[in-house]
Amino acid sequence: MKKLVLLRHGESIWNQENRFTGWTDVDLTPKGLKEAEEAGRLLRENGFSFDIAYTSLLKRAIRTLWIALDEMDQMWTPIELNWRLNERHYGALQGLNKAETAKQYGDEQVLVWRRSYDIRPPSITINDERYPGFDLRYRNMSSGDIPLAESLKDTVARFLPYWNQSIAPQIKAEKKVIIAAHGNSLRALIKHLDNISDQDILNCNIPTGIPLVYELDDDLKPLNSYYLGDAGQIGEAISAVANQGKSGA
Amino acid sequence: MKKLVLLRHGESIWNQENRFTGWTDVDLTPKGLKEAEEAGRLLRENGFSFDIAYTSLLKRAIRTLWIALDEMDQMWTPIELNWRLNERHYGALQGLNKAETAKQYGDEQVLVWRRSYDIRPPSITINDERYPGFDLRYRNMSSGDIPLAESLKDTVARFLPYWNQSIAPQIKAEKKVIIAAHGNSLRALIKHLDNISDQDILNCNIPTGIPLVYELDDDLKPLNSYYLGDAGQIGEAISAVANQGKSGA
Repeated sequence: MKKLVLLRHGESIWNQENRFTGWTDVDLTPKGLKEAEEAGRLLRENGFSFDIAYTSLLKRAIRTLWIALDEMDQMWTPIELNWRLNERHYGALQGLNKAETAKQYGDEQVLVWRRSYDIRPPSITINDERYPGFDLRYRNMSSGDIPLAESLKDTVARFLPYWNQSIAPQIKAEKKVIIAAHGNSLRALIKHLDNISDQDILNCNIPTGIPLVYELDDDLKPLNSYYLGDAGQIGEAISAVANQGKSGA
Repeated sequence: MKKLVLLRHGESIWNQENRFTGWTDVDLTPKGLKEAEEAGRLLRENGFSFDIAYTSLLKRAIRTLWIALDEMDQMWTPIELNWRLNERHYGALQGLNKAETAKQYGDEQVLVWRRSYDIRPPSITINDERYPGFDLRYRNMSSGDIPLAESLKDTVARFLPYWNQSIAPQIKAEKKVIIAAHGNSLRALIKHLDNISDQDILNCNIPTGIPLVYELDDDLKPLNSYYLGDAGQIGEAISAVANQGKSGA
């Protein structure tokens, strides 16, 4: 049996301000830092160690991973960073809060973007200061790969090649893997692993900062999955994320 | 012209306590944390960015690198970790302070170990709790590679293959590289780059937390090298390290 650990980053400043974040590189809040520490503590207490850690190019995920590894006293764990683990790119919504978005696009339209699997939010242009091509960290991406806005379907489509080509072979080779990433890039993986429908994946809410353990067979089909930690806390955390979704974050 | 940045980790707890540290995984002091931040600030203010960062498997070097990259707002920089960048292994001296060492081995003998290029301190045994083979991070090392004690010559010998096979090709391929490491693994590199004699390298003192920039030609021969920052501060830092050497750290 192979084990894989998924970890969604702790609360970020724009989670707290209820803004669409996407590829904006906002940092963790003090609560988010605490969540990351707690994740590391749970991993340590449950005897985890990793041969390799994967994360996105966004500091809220990287910092969550760093803090967790530090807490485990395993800062020496190799880390692979890749843009394909980034959060869904929210296009022209990035930076707007709920009120601003509703004002600019109308409540109904916002509902459509939030509740659909394959409808993209409005795109940024390549002249927009939010265009990832202006950011040094994406300098090696081909311009065809750089998103201007993504649906969850788009996020799944750019995440899966990295899973198939880089992460899955490591797990098949008996390497112990942790992935520290984002609500939607982790949804992309869970959709794939658990074979969840396009509609049902929208109701899948991953709590922040709680390690999610998958036990997989040799073909990487899930045998079991569970969160580490206290069941009550986990339930609360899942509800909190679901409610955050309802209020438009 | 190619540029390479070397960064020695900030003050560690055992630097402060004047103990032989070697492969013991001690953390930075508050002063060491400050030094790492300051290094990051200097790199940021001087417009540096890196395609790849190299460091050891020891947390004082990893943390120095993490803090510097954070301060540069470039946490997304890929990091390669390798035991060949570790500090010199001080064998059975690891953990002893100056007074303990002098008491156990005599002042003259301690002088020989400190002032010679190729004489090893006493070895640990493979039953010693300090034996690296007991440590998860070294699980992929072949037992023939695991040191029981190293002279500076030994450190040079195990560092150079990694330089030649992994780091140098990246620099030749125009990648911008930083190496965050230790007093003696960085001495090993400087000895090689500047073609310094076995005797003279012992007088080469690298200050902690101050980025050292090498400008290299296409064959990686140094054209120039300089520390970033205020000349007065750098002079003080070099003297401090030289004096630390004299008092046996």
